[in-house]
Amino acid sequence: MTEIKDLGEFGLIKHLTQDLPSYDNGVIKGIGDDAAILLIDGSSVITTDMLIEGVHFDLIYTPLKHLGYKAVAVNISDICAMNATPLGITVSLGISNRFTVEALEELYDGIKLACKKYKINIIGGDTCSSQKGLVISITAIGKVSKENVVYRNTAQLGDLLCVSGDLGAAYLGLQLLEREKQVYIEDPNMKPNFENKTYLLQRQMRPEARIDIIEKLAEVKIIPTAMIDISDGLSSEIFHLSEQSRIGFKIYEEKLPIHDEAREQAYAFNIDPTLCALSGGEDYELLFTIRQADYNQLMLVHDIHIIGHAVPHSEGNTIITRGGNIHPLKALGWNAFTENTKG
Amino acid sequence: MTEIKDLGEFGLIKHLTQDLPSYDNGVIKGIGDDAAILLIDGSSVITTDMLIEGVHFDLIYTPLKHLGYKAVAVNISDICAMNATPLGITVSLGISNRFTVEALEELYDGIKLACKKYKINIIGGDTCSSQKGLVISITAIGKVSKENVVYRNTAQLGDLLCVSGDLGAAYLGLQLLEREKQVYIEDPNMKPNFENKTYLLQRQMRPEARIDIIEKLAEVKIIPTAMIDISDGLSSEIFHLSEQSRIGFKIYEEKLPIHDEAREQAYAFNIDPTLCALSGGEDYELLFTIRQADYNQLMLVHDIHIIGHAVPHSEGNTIITRGGNIHPLKALGWNAFTENTKG
Repeated sequence: MTEIKDLGEFGLIKHLTQDLPSYDNGVIKGIGDDAAILLIDGSSVITTDMLIEGVHFDLIYTPLKHLGYKAVAVNISDICAMNATPLGITVSLGISNRFTVEALEELYDGIKLACKKYKINIIGGDTCSSQKGLVISITAIGKVSKENVVYRNTAQLGDLLCVSGDLGAAYLGLQLLEREKQVYIEDPNMKPNFENKTYLLQRQMRPEARIDIIEKLAEVKIIPTAMIDISDGLSSEIFHLSEQSRIGFKIYEEKLPIHDEAREQAYAFNIDPTLCALSGGEDYELLFTIRQADYNQLMLVHDIHIIGHAVPHSEGNTIITRGGNIHPLKALGWNAFTENTKG
Repeated sequence: MTEIKDLGEFGLIKHLTQDLPSYDNGVIKGIGDDAAILLIDGSSVITTDMLIEGVHFDLIYTPLKHLGYKAVAVNISDICAMNATPLGITVSLGISNRFTVEALEELYDGIKLACKKYKINIIGGDTCSSQKGLVISITAIGKVSKENVVYRNTAQLGDLLCVSGDLGAAYLGLQLLEREKQVYIEDPNMKPNFENKTYLLQRQMRPEARIDIIEKLAEVKIIPTAMIDISDGLSSEIFHLSEQSRIGFKIYEEKLPIHDEAREQAYAFNIDPTLCALSGGEDYELLFTIRQADYNQLMLVHDIHIIGHAVPHSEGNTIITRGGNIHPLKALGWNAFTENTKG
């Protein structure tokens, strides 16, 4: 095992950033100067996310490679939510001295894998020591033409509300990992039991940004009227669209896409699967509105579910249950939800 | 005092980012969506820096307002080092629960003040809790036309090596603060003694990005042949220019700009002022090369010092002392220097 101080800051950066994937994304200058230079065709799209050990991730059950991948994916998801194309990222790491060079190689392997998947470049970053734990701060840059950019505040009355993929599985994956962690803490000889849980674990540990949805919508010539990505939970994101667009949403419980594995796990945990879908968070799916006139075109796109529609702002945000009852939606985000389940 | 959890993440961001300065820097969408949208005239310039409590700053003697200002300035300094114009920043904060809303207001006051000074916008960010201490990650975006961008690897044989401002004062300011901290730890009733040290403290606690130099060079129509900002120390930056441009530099001890207050303090600490200038770090001045033909034009720009010139790579990097001796330069950066003085 190699200690970080053996390489020094510059040596470490050089070591980690060798063999980087390289795409022709307008990068005039990447790593190695005071700043990166990009020639961007259209408007620049910029987003940033910070992940802190012990708050956003637990290295007891998170492989560093998956963590690296996820740290990139969550940023690319935000670029997608503007209907934009990702181009590159900067990666800043704060590292405590308990990390070896080999550990950081694993983290970077995940980062590089995500860069390959999303066809983006690492254009810069910063590596420094931290007093405690690992801090990852990634900024992603993308491009979009002015006509194609999609905001949160432009949903219109009568629009259809759509969501990609399925909801709640990442939250249930987290609960599963937390449960097995407790078992492990009580008896380190116990093997974790993750049989038939592959999907839940993958959704929690290695989410994907839905760049494929953005590409398919472009193919069928649909520009959503408003869009957001689901990081805090469906309810919370519906409230963002609602508040910013000054409109209400009516959604239908029976339309919420929930994976079989998630539904089974929710029952096993004695939680309502619908609550997981509404408030679980970390799905990194896209939530968007389209004009009703785009319905036929939307049918050409796989893996999208119409879950409701836009109503006057005065009607608020409501869910129609399977039994036909109307309930007001609550804007419970991931944090609030976690606190609730803890009691 | 208000606890952060009373406002929640969204409430806190809303509170801190009210009354932001706003400049017409091509910002189509700032804070409030999944990502910011900027229409950039020319190439985009991107740089990022992470500051961690206990590693990069000590809140025992660093006022939060100054810290906020400095966190912005060091990033803008990197934008300037590409000969570019800064446009905006994203601000990510990791905050432990010992910080109050009022403390973060102070930090943000400094950030906003720097934004006013450099005429830039806050276009996004992320605020989350940390397990320990304060983490600040800022990414700055700027613009530059392709013809004007200045790299590190383009210095030419015979070029003049120039530096703005003066060197070593920030390092001495830090030593002063560390000394008074020790005094305070031993006897909390002792008042710190900072008489006649205003300049040193200001250089350490509230450095400025030299955007004024970039503007003045443009006015007199000088495009440096290569440029870098001095964050780790003059020697270390000379080695970056040298390695990347495949050229050597000869500098003259008597030409190194050192402020009177810095020189006096160095003598008081029994350190060689030249060593402080070479290896002190955190000066955030610009180090650049110009063609000899630009000499007359350079004389029109205030606060720039010619400290040497470019020689063949095989001659390496050397310093001619006041006594006329030639010494090889050592690439001691700030970190190495600190360790040396400690041991």
